[in-house]
Amino acid sequence: MKKLINKPEDVVKEALAGMLAAHPDLLRVDVEQQVIVRKDAPVPNKVGVISGGGSGHEPMHGGFVGRGMLDAACPGAVFTSPVPDQILEATKAVSSGSGVLHIVKNYTGDVMNFEMAAELAAAEGIEVASVVTNDDVAVQDSLYTAGRRGVGVTVLLEKIVGGFAETGAPLEQVAALARKVNEQGRSMGMALTSCTVPTAGHPTFELGEDEMEIGIGIHGEPGRRRVKLAPAAEIVEMLATPVIDDLGLKAGEQVLAFVNGMGGTPLIELYIVYNELQRILKGKQVSIGRSLVGSYITSLEMAGCSITLVRLDDELVKYWDAPVHTPALRWGV
Amino acid sequence: MKKLINKPEDVVKEALAGMLAAHPDLLRVDVEQQVIVRKDAPVPNKVGVISGGGSGHEPMHGGFVGRGMLDAACPGAVFTSPVPDQILEATKAVSSGSGVLHIVKNYTGDVMNFEMAAELAAAEGIEVASVVTNDDVAVQDSLYTAGRRGVGVTVLLEKIVGGFAETGAPLEQVAALARKVNEQGRSMGMALTSCTVPTAGHPTFELGEDEMEIGIGIHGEPGRRRVKLAPAAEIVEMLATPVIDDLGLKAGEQVLAFVNGMGGTPLIELYIVYNELQRILKGKQVSIGRSLVGSYITSLEMAGCSITLVRLDDELVKYWDAPVHTPALRWGV
Repeated sequence: MKKLINKPEDVVKEALAGMLAAHPDLLRVDVEQQVIVRKDAPVPNKVGVISGGGSGHEPMHGGFVGRGMLDAACPGAVFTSPVPDQILEATKAVSSGSGVLHIVKNYTGDVMNFEMAAELAAAEGIEVASVVTNDDVAVQDSLYTAGRRGVGVTVLLEKIVGGFAETGAPLEQVAALARKVNEQGRSMGMALTSCTVPTAGHPTFELGEDEMEIGIGIHGEPGRRRVKLAPAAEIVEMLATPVIDDLGLKAGEQVLAFVNGMGGTPLIELYIVYNELQRILKGKQVSIGRSLVGSYITSLEMAGCSITLVRLDDELVKYWDAPVHTPALRWGV
Repeated sequence: MKKLINKPEDVVKEALAGMLAAHPDLLRVDVEQQVIVRKDAPVPNKVGVISGGGSGHEPMHGGFVGRGMLDAACPGAVFTSPVPDQILEATKAVSSGSGVLHIVKNYTGDVMNFEMAAELAAAEGIEVASVVTNDDVAVQDSLYTAGRRGVGVTVLLEKIVGGFAETGAPLEQVAALARKVNEQGRSMGMALTSCTVPTAGHPTFELGEDEMEIGIGIHGEPGRRRVKLAPAAEIVEMLATPVIDDLGLKAGEQVLAFVNGMGGTPLIELYIVYNELQRILKGKQVSIGRSLVGSYITSLEMAGCSITLVRLDDELVKYWDAPVHTPALRWGV
């Protein structure tokens, strides 16, 4: 195992300490409890927006804490759900009395623990709404999931919904917009290589030198099929076609196109992937209104990529463009 | 070779096409000539600031083209210098009559070709000043270099000098600030794994399962020594100590601290590295005035990191903080 770490069991807490040291202007971090909070939380008269999940997907979610995106994030151990007490602490830290939105990726442990935390918060008088993302078209049920997995749409949803929450919109409207983004978005990913969970010390799965996994999950869960390596043009077809079909995209529609790296894939390759994606969309007369290219929802050092498309309308464009100031995404400020 | 590419010989041009498709609001790209230009270039009454070098280091340099940073970038083939005609085209594209600054990393081919381009530009009546970065303390001479190699300081220099150029400062002052940043900065890197140049198809060098290379160059050039794997705390000591000593940092001084990923290392590890770096600097009573954590000067998919420190003063802080709007770095706008 080749990693820039100290003890495997200290990875998450040491990375959190590093985040706090690097971004003291943006964040407060409870390293022990593993909660990252926007520095000026709770923001008065604003819905608190939080998310969380296993570590190993950085910058998601901690790198998205700040003005115009998340008010807090609670990272669990690597590829492991955060615990209810941790989620409760994050919920209380961002509660200004206007309610709190939980953004939950559809993995059994995450859903269960966020539900328990919401009940605990309700018992303390905090109104919580929850939205579950399930945008991965690759497989119906998976190792950790009933239904579809939550992946790339989560990043875009956190940005759009966080921008809307800044306007002081009420909880039910913020939750409704979150559901809308999830409904209008689909994703699919692939892996060229596996990844190694630090405490495991060996790769999560084995892939031959000439193989890739199409439809991979962000924890290395199996996808649709294992196939021989292929040129980028064919790989992007394999990912984009199911996404476009499942979303029912039609000529004349506009999308937010997100090409995401899995952690071990360099930017030069992601731009090649984006070039293929824009060619496919142009062929279907779907226009790209906004785009994002980079490694934002990763699987440790896995090499590979995912493609996410969200159908845009004026409302989504408006809050995507709204100012954001977090460690990983920043514009307009 | 596992990469998201089509034909190896098309990698650079297809990535450039992808960049143009993703950032039409920021960039013009001559895909054939391999020149990336700020959309509104030449900017009147402003020194044009350009850089270039081999591809494979993305986002450097093309991802730094835009307001407040570079006016143009000319990427060569992977790990190969751009040619004089290409650099000349970039120089002419950004020339508003106020002169052009060439920022050149200290590699023999780059230095030679930028020199030839500067002579060609002078023959066409364009005043060019050149600044060579040579911040890598690892080795004195190397595979492609006489003297020290230019690495991480180049990124920070392009940001600071680009911010200053926006004020309309004259060429000699812009060049002087560039020389100052280079003089006040030092870097050192390491690799956990090699990388594979697409047209080569095999790793540039071999590293054992239990080995790492300390002092690696950004093209996989040999470093100071090959040693057994070690915890992050020890690795960061091996990199930071030579940087701090060579820069002669003293208690009470302030630095810009840059932890850079080599392309295949995930962000969670870079924050662990940053945590160790801030601990070391605190121990020496050196304060971190500004920081940057991420993969900005890469070596394809190499796993590893580099550490860059620049001694700060009010002038450098002012132009580091100035607005920047490029594909890879953006704030204040």
